[in-house]
Amino acid sequence: MSPKYANVSERELEPPSLAISTVIFALRPDPDSGKLTLWLPLVRRIRQPYLDLWALPGGPLRPTESLQDAAARNLRETTALEPRYLEQLYAFGGPDRSPSPRVVSIVYWALVQPDEAALARQDENVAWFRADGVGTLAFDHNQIVEYALWRLRSKMEYGTVAYAFLGERFTLAQVRDVYEAVLGGELDPANFRRQLLASPHIEPTSEYLQGGRHRPPRLYRYTGPVPQTDANPRPEPRS
Amino acid sequence: MSPKYANVSERELEPPSLAISTVIFALRPDPDSGKLTLWLPLVRRIRQPYLDLWALPGGPLRPTESLQDAAARNLRETTALEPRYLEQLYAFGGPDRSPSPRVVSIVYWALVQPDEAALARQDENVAWFRADGVGTLAFDHNQIVEYALWRLRSKMEYGTVAYAFLGERFTLAQVRDVYEAVLGGELDPANFRRQLLASPHIEPTSEYLQGGRHRPPRLYRYTGPVPQTDANPRPEPRS
Repeated sequence: MSPKYANVSERELEPPSLAISTVIFALRPDPDSGKLTLWLPLVRRIRQPYLDLWALPGGPLRPTESLQDAAARNLRETTALEPRYLEQLYAFGGPDRSPSPRVVSIVYWALVQPDEAALARQDENVAWFRADGVGTLAFDHNQIVEYALWRLRSKMEYGTVAYAFLGERFTLAQVRDVYEAVLGGELDPANFRRQLLASPHIEPTSEYLQGGRHRPPRLYRYTGPVPQTDANPRPEPRS
Repeated sequence: MSPKYANVSERELEPPSLAISTVIFALRPDPDSGKLTLWLPLVRRIRQPYLDLWALPGGPLRPTESLQDAAARNLRETTALEPRYLEQLYAFGGPDRSPSPRVVSIVYWALVQPDEAALARQDENVAWFRADGVGTLAFDHNQIVEYALWRLRSKMEYGTVAYAFLGERFTLAQVRDVYEAVLGGELDPANFRRQLLASPHIEPTSEYLQGGRHRPPRLYRYTGPVPQTDANPRPEPRS
């Protein structure tokens, strides 16, 4: 019997198991340039397979909890993060994505604001990585991160998702920082400002950014639908 | 030991199992009014639990197939349908969604054109139902259908998804029929026509609808991104 055949027949005997993983995106300044960039927290594998490689936070589904609750609990237990919005992204379950037995991972994701991200545990087994520099991850987690990035970038087109990264009041330059961090590259400030002011749901406040500037920039607020990972506020199915 | 506690501890022993389900939407004329309405195929349960109730087509995941392949195979085996586009919708896995052992269902969905829908098997165990009149379904399938309808309606706003229901050439009235069938209710023909002609990606052809009319309406075509269930053409993750 060839090794390949042995492997197939072993898989036949073991039903797939289920896991929950989470992709959490936050904007943080790059330590070198100071420019805002997109980061995500990863946890170090402390057992086989993929011992010592970095992986998305996650874990098993407990018998009496929903998928959503399992995602929130696993994230809290591994990173101490408790994002306000945590949504299902996609289920990954290809037959070759992990050593036998096969694991189907239901992936949740969230965009967190700096105040939430600052509460994350950081030690030798939990760290933040730039989204474009995660290195080789365990399992198919590189592919999952790429998929999440692709979804995030395509959702930026609808507009509202950018505000999930911002506080209640923000300057127009801060919105541009978010777009530049997520899409990569630079946007023309004058064009961006004009487009933003023409969009609905952006309203000037009477406040200005605190600080020592000669002409402090005005603060704006977002008045559209509650920003979520998904561009649509949707009835959360009991999952 | 209370029955409730006994149930919890039984669930503790059994890991969740995995199933794949599919929601297939097609437009068909209502047999009474002749007006286009939204329909979906259901299959009758031929075993417990929920014996004799109607349910979404679906079945198990085989050890060596991807989630996507399992969805296509289960759909083909139960209904003979082979939609051109079949995409992951959502994973449903609440602890109370099925009798023990718990089942996590990964749901795929598709929009099919009349030529595809016409190929579906129809017998005493496979039938088409109006989306707004499915009655009581097995498991939590009513909730899944409602969720799929909600997603479909919210995607109509982006525009391109309507063309997944239409052929290569269509009249403006046919586009309005799709919107009315999915959103329910009636749309003002003149307003709708004006909005449609103002949208990008809709181009007149030099052809007219065949038939015995005095002034046959012009046929248009869609030139935007390939219509899919999801408004964005997305790189299909290997799942």
